[in-house]
Amino acid sequence: SFANLRIHPHGLVLVDMQSYNDHMKGREEVDQLLNKVEERMKELFHGNIKRVKRLPAILRGGVIDRYWPTADGRLVEYDIDEVVYDEDSPFQNIKILHSKQFGNILILSGDVNLAESDLAYTQAIMGSGKEDYTGKEVLILGGGDGGILYEIVKLKPKMVTMVASNIDQMVIDGCKKHMRKTCGDVLDNLKGECYQVLIEDCIPVLKRYAKEGRMFDYVINDLTAVPISTSPEEDSTWEFLRLILDLSMKVLKQDGKYFTQGNCINLTDALTLYEEQLSRLYCPVEFSKETVCVPSYMELWVFYTIWKKQTDI
Amino acid sequence: SFANLRIHPHGLVLVDMQSYNDHMKGREEVDQLLNKVEERMKELFHGNIKRVKRLPAILRGGVIDRYWPTADGRLVEYDIDEVVYDEDSPFQNIKILHSKQFGNILILSGDVNLAESDLAYTQAIMGSGKEDYTGKEVLILGGGDGGILYEIVKLKPKMVTMVASNIDQMVIDGCKKHMRKTCGDVLDNLKGECYQVLIEDCIPVLKRYAKEGRMFDYVINDLTAVPISTSPEEDSTWEFLRLILDLSMKVLKQDGKYFTQGNCINLTDALTLYEEQLSRLYCPVEFSKETVCVPSYMELWVFYTIWKKQTDI
Repeated sequence: SFANLRIHPHGLVLVDMQSYNDHMKGREEVDQLLNKVEERMKELFHGNIKRVKRLPAILRGGVIDRYWPTADGRLVEYDIDEVVYDEDSPFQNIKILHSKQFGNILILSGDVNLAESDLAYTQAIMGSGKEDYTGKEVLILGGGDGGILYEIVKLKPKMVTMVASNIDQMVIDGCKKHMRKTCGDVLDNLKGECYQVLIEDCIPVLKRYAKEGRMFDYVINDLTAVPISTSPEEDSTWEFLRLILDLSMKVLKQDGKYFTQGNCINLTDALTLYEEQLSRLYCPVEFSKETVCVPSYMELWVFYTIWKKQTDI
Repeated sequence: SFANLRIHPHGLVLVDMQSYNDHMKGREEVDQLLNKVEERMKELFHGNIKRVKRLPAILRGGVIDRYWPTADGRLVEYDIDEVVYDEDSPFQNIKILHSKQFGNILILSGDVNLAESDLAYTQAIMGSGKEDYTGKEVLILGGGDGGILYEIVKLKPKMVTMVASNIDQMVIDGCKKHMRKTCGDVLDNLKGECYQVLIEDCIPVLKRYAKEGRMFDYVINDLTAVPISTSPEEDSTWEFLRLILDLSMKVLKQDGKYFTQGNCINLTDALTLYEEQLSRLYCPVEFSKETVCVPSYMELWVFYTIWKKQTDI
């Protein structure tokens, strides 16, 4: 064990303690030691301490990593107790970690994507229970965890087409095994009574559908490429995003709806930039947004509903 | 600024950097420095690094404290940007801090109690929308933030009596000013058309009601004394809790319901101990529980519904 004491001007005293030890055992030991240090400090300062704040010990270097910062950059610790899946695809790192309270959590390249507790995410990106999917044609872009597909198939749609690219293949493989509370058995086969999963890049598929004149009642964009960028110079990200949006509008019926997730509520610049893109599509659209609490995110998340502006005849 | 490098056996290398600086500015500086350190380390190790994990900088000693650990002891950082209220009552420290996403958060002695975003808490402790409060007699124990009172009054009850003790007086004062999204104007007066707030200890009030034979359709226990204890030797806490429960059952109609919050889902020992208490009341009761995501808690929370066991005639 090793301790570090720093006394700063204006009276700030920092005490850091490190212990190289077994997981939780080390944590308890450090806590006991800190109790003693705190007591002794209070004696030495004769009660002249304005404020004491002790933070829970940070566990570093273990097999299990419990720290997955939020999209707005805050440090949060998860109750992870098991690494269930950890693979590198050519595109990203795919982890599925077990949380005591959230169940298995899918983490893509360090970003918490979805946990088994997060039905709220799936419901939000499906329109928060306000839509009737019975007999409808639905297109899902991405959605490799299978959550949206699983929930919509229950609602007796006419046909759901999910387009997941190569990027999603290993996500699908991991989720169909370890996220069954989210996807049920829907990913076990790429074809069901009222659904099909295409493992293809979504751009050519959308172009083909647009050319064929194939139209959908709902397009749900659950691609993992989140508009995190806040710098408008990063044109390619936004251009890609607009391309997807434009093509989606082409295959969306006049009274259809497009659903997507936006970003965490605190990244207001990124949200504003996204909304600006919506005014730059080939056809005029309107949108609404909703803020939702997704349990495993530990931050509020914004979801968009976009539809074609109805022109007066 | 000051840096600390430790090389542990088995190849763990820890780099800690500290910078005494202004709030967010310091954070960015440290980040940039760490970028350079990480680059240089990768060069020195010729790519032989198995895993790199960098944690967001921890801000310590500032006016604004962003770290409020969860009930199960995890380190979580909040997006606090303002201290709205900070007072010591003879019983506890009462803070109301502003979070960008959750609105104002009430923190009692370091425990996150309720944020303006947390209607989910109030709905859960009212029975999750499954109850009809119209024309009903309701008793609230505690509930100093006014959230439950505000929501029930909207539902046209016959009469709501809220019993808040001296302990809650300063909580009420702070909340009626700074948590208006939660309590509306309901705490501005201690009496309304269909409610009254008694500033009295709840034990004598409950005893009086029991003696008078006054009965309620709903008793909602929102006292801040959470059954955090996991040691059965701490008898007084559990005895107090049982006393409240026993007295509440005495004033609860035969078909009435008692609602309360339990604990975070991970403190299973405390939850089990609580449930054991329920089998030790003067009358047989049954219960159900529900797990709810309260946005500002950053952990799932268990709520109880308790009712008198219906005996066959």
